[in-house]
Amino acid sequence: MNREDRYAYGMKVLEQVDGEAGQRIVDSLADTSPELGHQVVAWAFGDMYARPELPPRDRQLVTLGVLTALGGCEIELDVHINAALNVGLTPTEITEALLHSAVYCGMPRAINATLTAKKVFTDRALLPLTNIS
Amino acid sequence: MNREDRYAYGMKVLEQVDGEAGQRIVDSLADTSPELGHQVVAWAFGDMYARPELPPRDRQLVTLGVLTALGGCEIELDVHINAALNVGLTPTEITEALLHSAVYCGMPRAINATLTAKKVFTDRALLPLTNIS
Amino acid sequence: MNREDRYAYGMKVLEQVDGEAGQRIVDSLADTSPELGHQVVAWAFGDMYARPELPPRDRQLVTLGVLTALGGCEIELDVHINAALNVGLTPTEITEALLHSAVYCGMPRAINATLTAKKVFTDRALLPLTNIS
Amino acid sequence: MNREDRYAYGMKVLEQVDGEAGQRIVDSLADTSPELGHQVVAWAFGDMYARPELPPRDRQLVTLGVLTALGGCEIELDVHINAALNVGLTPTEITEALLHSAVYCGMPRAINATLTAKKVFTDRALLPLTNIS
Amino acid sequence: MNREDRYAYGMKVLEQVDGEAGQRIVDSLADTSPELGHQVVAWAFGDMYARPELPPRDRQLVTLGVLTALGGCEIELDVHINAALNVGLTPTEITEALLHSAVYCGMPRAINATLTAKKVFTDRALLPLTNIS
Amino acid sequence: MNREDRYAYGMKVLEQVDGEAGQRIVDSLADTSPELGHQVVAWAFGDMYARPELPPRDRQLVTLGVLTALGGCEIELDVHINAALNVGLTPTEITEALLHSAVYCGMPRAINATLTAKKVFTDRALLPLTNIS
Repeated sequence: MNREDRYAYGMKVLEQVDGEAGQRIVDSLADTSPELGHQVVAWAFGDMYARPELPPRDRQLVTLGVLTALGGCEIELDVHINAALNVGLTPTEITEALLHSAVYCGMPRAINATLTAKKVFTDRALLPLTNIS
Repeated sequence: MNREDRYAYGMKVLEQVDGEAGQRIVDSLADTSPELGHQVVAWAFGDMYARPELPPRDRQLVTLGVLTALGGCEIELDVHINAALNVGLTPTEITEALLHSAVYCGMPRAINATLTAKKVFTDRALLPLTNIS
Repeated sequence: MNREDRYAYGMKVLEQVDGEAGQRIVDSLADTSPELGHQVVAWAFGDMYARPELPPRDRQLVTLGVLTALGGCEIELDVHINAALNVGLTPTEITEALLHSAVYCGMPRAINATLTAKKVFTDRALLPLTNIS
Repeated sequence: MNREDRYAYGMKVLEQVDGEAGQRIVDSLADTSPELGHQVVAWAFGDMYARPELPPRDRQLVTLGVLTALGGCEIELDVHINAALNVGLTPTEITEALLHSAVYCGMPRAINATLTAKKVFTDRALLPLTNIS
Repeated sequence: MNREDRYAYGMKVLEQVDGEAGQRIVDSLADTSPELGHQVVAWAFGDMYARPELPPRDRQLVTLGVLTALGGCEIELDVHINAALNVGLTPTEITEALLHSAVYCGMPRAINATLTAKKVFTDRALLPLTNIS
Repeated sequence: MNREDRYAYGMKVLEQVDGEAGQRIVDSLADTSPELGHQVVAWAFGDMYARPELPPRDRQLVTLGVLTALGGCEIELDVHINAALNVGLTPTEITEALLHSAVYCGMPRAINATLTAKKVFTDRALLPLTNIS
């Protein structure tokens, strides 16, 4: 595959997983660092995300863990909470994953991530969650 | 103690330390992750904060150090700078603690934390500090 | 449940998930901070880990993401890579999860976590992996 | 040099490197932690930045790497992307440095830093970049 | 004060607080980066640590919080747990501070810091702690 | 370019920059996560490192900043301090870059990175540095 093919393939993966929210980040990079946008699409999605060794739902669980632990990634967490819903994680599973991460990276990171989830769930009219304990 | 008792006890500790600001974070979690709110109250405050081995003022010094170092925790730092004032740290001691942390986690984290302190001190009409060197 | 019951229940969960490796960390804390050991068992495992909202395999994926991103947690990552194997993740799924995390927290953290996985897989005579691409 | 001399000397260095943006951060600290402002000027710029062992352009490359990796330092990154332009790094070199950092600290930190660069470049009417691949 | 005076003054402060352990770190830097050793002594101890706005015991509580949260600072934590003992914190207060930090930066960081405390307490024949709950 | 070509090209770049030390990390991943080794070579070096927008010396300054700030990356820092020497940074410039980073990520991270530099400089018989202030 040449450079354009790799981009086109990655974009197909990105669209399935992240939908519009991912596209918006790539667009926002276009006038400042188109190469970063290219690498997000061609490498992160085309090369890495597309590998069959781990299904999309599992990848989002790992990603939620990483982004919650890093902190300061609210923009990216917004995209990936949307992605998590797109690939079949329920809102309850998502909030539970963030709650679980509190054990390992502390309450503040878990609270920040949960408030980002609240924003995404509100945008998608999923609140209040009904089957939560 | 059962689950409700643990929550009620933790809430009493939280009210003494964090006041309204802590309550607002718990409230903001209610429709998305009530269990995270429960754990903040019942575990973080009821189990951990209430232990007699370290007085509240000492706990806030540790907490200021942790939150400044983590970065990206402005919401939580706001709560805990309020808490620090509530348990007897003076504004000068708080800014000195944040200044001190610059040695260990660098100037940017200390500046960010100090700008959060500035916001809290402004809300509580404590500025300008008068007894500072 | 009282304090002892909560510990006993958490220990049962810890044994199922972490096996010996988790027990060793708790033991290593016994003479210095038995309360930290208690909280790992009674809270992290008894209260958090045991919740049915997310199955153990999913929890380990989140945990691998968090620990890889944090860095400097080789001791804990060792325990949780063992735990990941115990709850049904294959070695290939584990290394793929760590590879995936490289997109979000960079190559060095992913390399460090993978070298810890190598150590665990070696201890359990799982190398070389055979079904990897 | 006494305390005032050290401050005056540091301020001269800060003005050459950071220009107005650095001054604004120091001003913002004046009523809350004037000592932190003093240390930024007298120590960070007067003692450290002014050393001849590394020229200003090299220092900004290191600083961009550190601030991108830390995350949550958008205020400081804004100052130092301005500083990078002031000491002779081109917009293309700056975005390339941020792209490069993605290898080591992951895509989200690189995206966040690039979006801060976009803001600075927009303020200085440098967009769209024309000589980028 | 000139450069030598600032160093001499800082060294006096360092000796009171850190004792031998701090001196060893400065010595270890002598052939590679004597200026870093100088800044640790003259700036971190002479300028920052010596300020009267916060007593040494309070500074160690903040420092323990910062170093626990940062992670990967076992060498420095060793020095500062020694320092904490030197300035009047009891072993129980130190382990409680590290336990408290678990709420904010998670269990793994608290465990790592506590295992460093265990090493220091063992070196100083302080184990087992007797007045712990 | 196909997958093998991309690897071969990346390996040529890696050899020029990192020399043996980089090769050893890739080798160490071979039985556990060959794909991570492939991505380090084909993507990090072949796609990213090889871009002409920033020369190798500048890339190492950014990399030193990122790795120092991340912490816990001693293995990778060892490789990249070797790489920094290979692409023309002097030992004095390297230690100055690490000293400079102390302003932004604190003394402990700078000390840890400097002790890694000390190890590399010792291995390459470069100590004591003679032209340092």
